Order: sequence, then C-alpha cells, then structure tokens
Amino acid sequence: MKIQNSPTLRRMPTYLHRLFKLRLAGQEWVSCAELAEYMGIPHIMVRKDIAMTGLPGNKRFGFKVNDLINAILKFVGWDHATSATLVGVGSLGSALLGFTDFQAYNFRIESVFDSDPDKIGREVHGFEVYDIAEIRERLKLACPKVGIICVSSIGAQGVADVLVSLGIKYIWNFANVCLKVPEGVIVQREVIAGGLAVLFAKMRRAEAGETVTETD
Amino acid sequence: MKIQNSPTLRRMPTYLHRLFKLRLAGQEWVSCAELAEYMGIPHIMVRKDIAMTGLPGNKRFGFKVNDLINAILKFVGWDHATSATLVGVGSLGSALLGFTDFQAYNFRIESVFDSDPDKIGREVHGFEVYDIAEIRERLKLACPKVGIICVSSIGAQGVADVLVSLGIKYIWNFANVCLKVPEGVIVQREVIAGGLAVLFAKMRRAEAGETVTETD
Repeated sequence: MKIQNSPTLRRMPTYLHRLFKLRLAGQEWVSCAELAEYMGIPHIMVRKDIAMTGLPGNKRFGFKVNDLINAILKFVGWDHATSATLVGVGSLGSALLGFTDFQAYNFRIESVFDSDPDKIGREVHGFEVYDIAEIRERLKLACPKVGIICVSSIGAQGVADVLVSLGIKYIWNFANVCLKVPEGVIVQREVIAGGLAVLFAKMRRAEAGETVTETD
Repeated sequence: MKIQNSPTLRRMPTYLHRLFKLRLAGQEWVSCAELAEYMGIPHIMVRKDIAMTGLPGNKRFGFKVNDLINAILKFVGWDHATSATLVGVGSLGSALLGFTDFQAYNFRIESVFDSDPDKIGREVHGFEVYDIAEIRERLKLACPKVGIICVSSIGAQGVADVLVSLGIKYIWNFANVCLKVPEGVIVQREVIAGGLAVLFAKMRRAEAGETVTETD
C-alpha cells in the first residue's frame, strides 16, 4: 500500500469542507485552479493531492464535485462508518462534539464519558455524558473502533489503559502527553501548540525578509 | 535562514512539555534515548530535531535539561514575549485560553473578544471577554502581534479583515475556512480533522498488515 504523505492527508478535510459547500451551491465541476486559489497553495500541489485519490480528471472541466468528494472520502477511509467514544468533555472535548463535519466523514461518536459529577448526565451538543466509571459496562456489547482522549495530561494514560483493555486499537489523543500503549495500538497525538510553532517559524522568516506562503 | 521542517517544529511543544516536567522533578541531564523512548519515535529523529536548535550535546550525559529548554524556546521564537488577541470564546477558544503552556512559550493572550451577549463581560480562564464591537477601540493603543480566530467558519473572514485592518500580520486560524488576506499577512490554519485523516490512513495500513509507528 502506498504510504500517504501526511500534509496531503491533512489537507483533505479542507478540500472536503469546500467541496461540500460547492455541492450545496449546485456547482457540478471544480478545477484544480479553483481549489488552489481557495486554499492559497500552488496549483500543482492540488493536482498532486487529487492524484493520490486516483480520480481521473476531465481536461476541460476538471473534476465532478460529487465524484471528488467520494474519491477523497474513500482515499481517507471515510467512505464507511467508523464508531468512536470520547472521554473528557472539557472545552476541547465539547468543541469536537460540536464539529459537524464528522457526520460527513461517517465518523460517529457514539458515547461520551467524563468523571466530573457536574458533567455526568448533562447533554453536550446532543450527546449525553456518561460516568467514566461505567465505561466497561456501557461499551461491553459494542466496542467502538476509535477512542478520543480529551482529558488532562495527568489522567490520559489511565484512560488510554481502559480503552485498550476494552479492545480499542485506535486512539486520537488530545492530551499533552505521549501515551504508552501495547504494540498494535495506534495513537494519533494532536499537538495544538504545534501549529503555533509553525506560525512562529514563518514569522521569523517573514521578519528576515523572506516570502512565506501558506504551504510552508 | 534555514527553512525548518514542519514535523520537527510540531514536535517542539511535546519536547518542551516533557522537559518542563523533568526540570520540575529536578533532573539535570536528559539523553536523546530517554526523549525518544518517551515520544515513541526513533532516537535518530530526536537527535536531528535537537541538532536543529544548534545546542551541542555532551557525549556522555546528553543535554542539560535547562539548556535544552532554552535552546528550543529560542529555536521556535518563544524566547521573547509575543502578544496575542483571541476572537471567539466557544469551546475551542476556551480550550486555548486554558492552555497553560502558552505562558512558558512567552505567548501572551492579552485580550479576548466575542459577539455573544451571553459571553461578553464574563470571565473565561481568568480572561475578561470584551465585545467584538469594541475591538478597534481596545486595541488601538497596543496592537497585539498575533490574532487567534476561533469563530465559526461563517464569521472568520470578517474577523480576519478587522484584525488585518488593525495591523495584525500573523493569524492563527482555527475556523474551517481558508482566509483571504493581503500579501504580507501570514495565516497558520489549524485543521483539527487533519489528524483524524492521518489516524485513518494509519488504520488502513495496520489493517493491511503493515507495522505502523507514531512517526508516520
């Protein structure tokens, strides 16, 4: 299997978000140039990204918006439903629960847990928050595929251990800590401050008189 | 100026978070091997990352924790104070306001704005929320260097236009939209779902029987 380049993968949600909008606006075709202009990246980069999905384009019209949406969803693995559970309904967890594009990705958060008595039993973006103490009982009949960890860095390893013991093999970790997991369990760690580091690197280059583009 | 590799930059907050913890635990020296084990990435990758900062190591003991912290802060551009304003105190904006490591980066959010009457005048993580309608008046005497946009994708361009008109040249954009800004203004867009796309790519490879590591 081709190893996908991570910047390409990271651009896919942005393409999708734009394409959904174009589709709702009734636009049938889209060109690389149009997407490139929207994204502020070179034309060739869009062309290469789309080539990764394997969708052949039409020389004159570009790509059918609907076909491109489906090709991207398939490329990323969002063409079939994937279930998830989310642990930790602080600000960040709440933000994820409110992220409407997940539905379009067929990514379904099916249960939400927290340990805070003030949060348990409440509804957040339509999700009822369950007591983390009940997680084994609640997930024993249908274990979700992905576990999303949004607890503090102190609590994250304990939550990861529970998720792994339930049979979850894919963890999306927003806690600022590297988790220890058994071989075969895959952790994708999100470091939000990482983007700030990239912004600062661009700032330094701009202040040194260089031209800095979005794609750097 | 050397163009920094963005995965290296994105790892810097994680190194820092760990190093702060080691320093508080009274640990004087740290080796690449120790950091590599914590991060779950190859030793050579840590070595290369640290080499980017220009800090010479000690063959026997590795790096002084304190020196490494300072070298990383300098490398990223976090060795001097940078001011910021944040617009949009929804879940994600609140999460950023609660992110304590910003202090260690000398990154100071100095003002917070929202248009929601329920939020204006409230305090979020110690920050008073001001009315976005007052942003020109409030920032006219001291314009912050960085603008953080945490509003919905619909409102983001309007906020960006205001920030740019105030003289802000660096925008950290969390809205799911590509902003149009004049030349010379740098936008770092955070696509949180981008990490989910990377996780799914790893999932597909793992399910195809490949070995997938954290660094892919």
